[in-house]
Amino acid sequence: MQLLEERIAKDGRIFEGDILKVDNFLNHQIDVDLMVQLSREFYKLFEKDDVNKVLTIEASGIAVACLTAEQFGCPLVFAKKSRTSNMGNNEVYASPVHSFTHNNDYNAIVSKNYLSPSDRVLIIDDFLAKGSALMALSDIVSQSGATVVGAGILIEKVYQGGGDLIRSRGIRVESLARIASMDPVKGFVFE
Amino acid sequence: MQLLEERIAKDGRIFEGDILKVDNFLNHQIDVDLMVQLSREFYKLFEKDDVNKVLTIEASGIAVACLTAEQFGCPLVFAKKSRTSNMGNNEVYASPVHSFTHNNDYNAIVSKNYLSPSDRVLIIDDFLAKGSALMALSDIVSQSGATVVGAGILIEKVYQGGGDLIRSRGIRVESLARIASMDPVKGFVFE
Repeated sequence: MQLLEERIAKDGRIFEGDILKVDNFLNHQIDVDLMVQLSREFYKLFEKDDVNKVLTIEASGIAVACLTAEQFGCPLVFAKKSRTSNMGNNEVYASPVHSFTHNNDYNAIVSKNYLSPSDRVLIIDDFLAKGSALMALSDIVSQSGATVVGAGILIEKVYQGGGDLIRSRGIRVESLARIASMDPVKGFVFE
Repeated sequence: MQLLEERIAKDGRIFEGDILKVDNFLNHQIDVDLMVQLSREFYKLFEKDDVNKVLTIEASGIAVACLTAEQFGCPLVFAKKSRTSNMGNNEVYASPVHSFTHNNDYNAIVSKNYLSPSDRVLIIDDFLAKGSALMALSDIVSQSGATVVGAGILIEKVYQGGGDLIRSRGIRVESLARIASMDPVKGFVFE
């Protein structure tokens, strides 16, 4: 997806500690026209997969996930982040996530009302690095008995290995920008 | 906006303590087709106002705000919630919010990069009750020197007074469903 890679190269800012800031078009200010184009790309990639539900996690994935659900004409479900263990709450599916960005742990939770065995779920998220959030979302779909048709990711940091890990479990992962390496001085290398 | 009121009457659930659950179509599972229709309604209401930016606050307002920004062909900015005081950080606009739903306090923050005096901002949010979040967003726009053209709200709990408070300050507030009262036994009364 040349379009997104070009935008990252133009507007993304790289800081020490493997930090990528794309908050001028993706996760604080959102270039909605760009996101519409990217959501159409997700539609093309998964249009033959009978997707009837899009799943993401709050907060910054919601915008592109909503536009993708608009393309498919289906509902969007967003998992909530909970600091407390909801494992004793039998009304939700829950799965633990470790955020390497924020160095904390939380549970991704989805009400049992909104996933069922007949669902064919496309997971959408903005970032894929070590894959912790995506594993949790996939786990939640499995708990419900629904089918994960795949995952659509805006930006994959390929060198962090999360994508390989998840693909090795048989899940189709399509990333619109694949960063092979990035460095505050040398800039971006895309795959 | 008959459409949203009908949906609330059909699928909204009222609990003791003035709690309205609309998580099957609005803030956990999102009926995107419905949200597209509601975003068109916001467009009709504000189309003559030269809106060039939509502002909301994470997380549950992002979906309808994104679709509204799509209608206007403009960017979306979402304010972040921060538990820590960012008042000493001169890179952001910040304004305090008290959440009566969760009985806590946080700051709404927006990077100074994403609001400027030439902006004409439409604020979009899912709920308006006592108006604390909307006041904070309006305050942030004022700090930046930009213009608030108005606020588009999905559900206003009219009896909580936040809408009146904000309108009394000269801000145009358009709510697509206006709940005059609600009760677990008697159900909803709309204005």
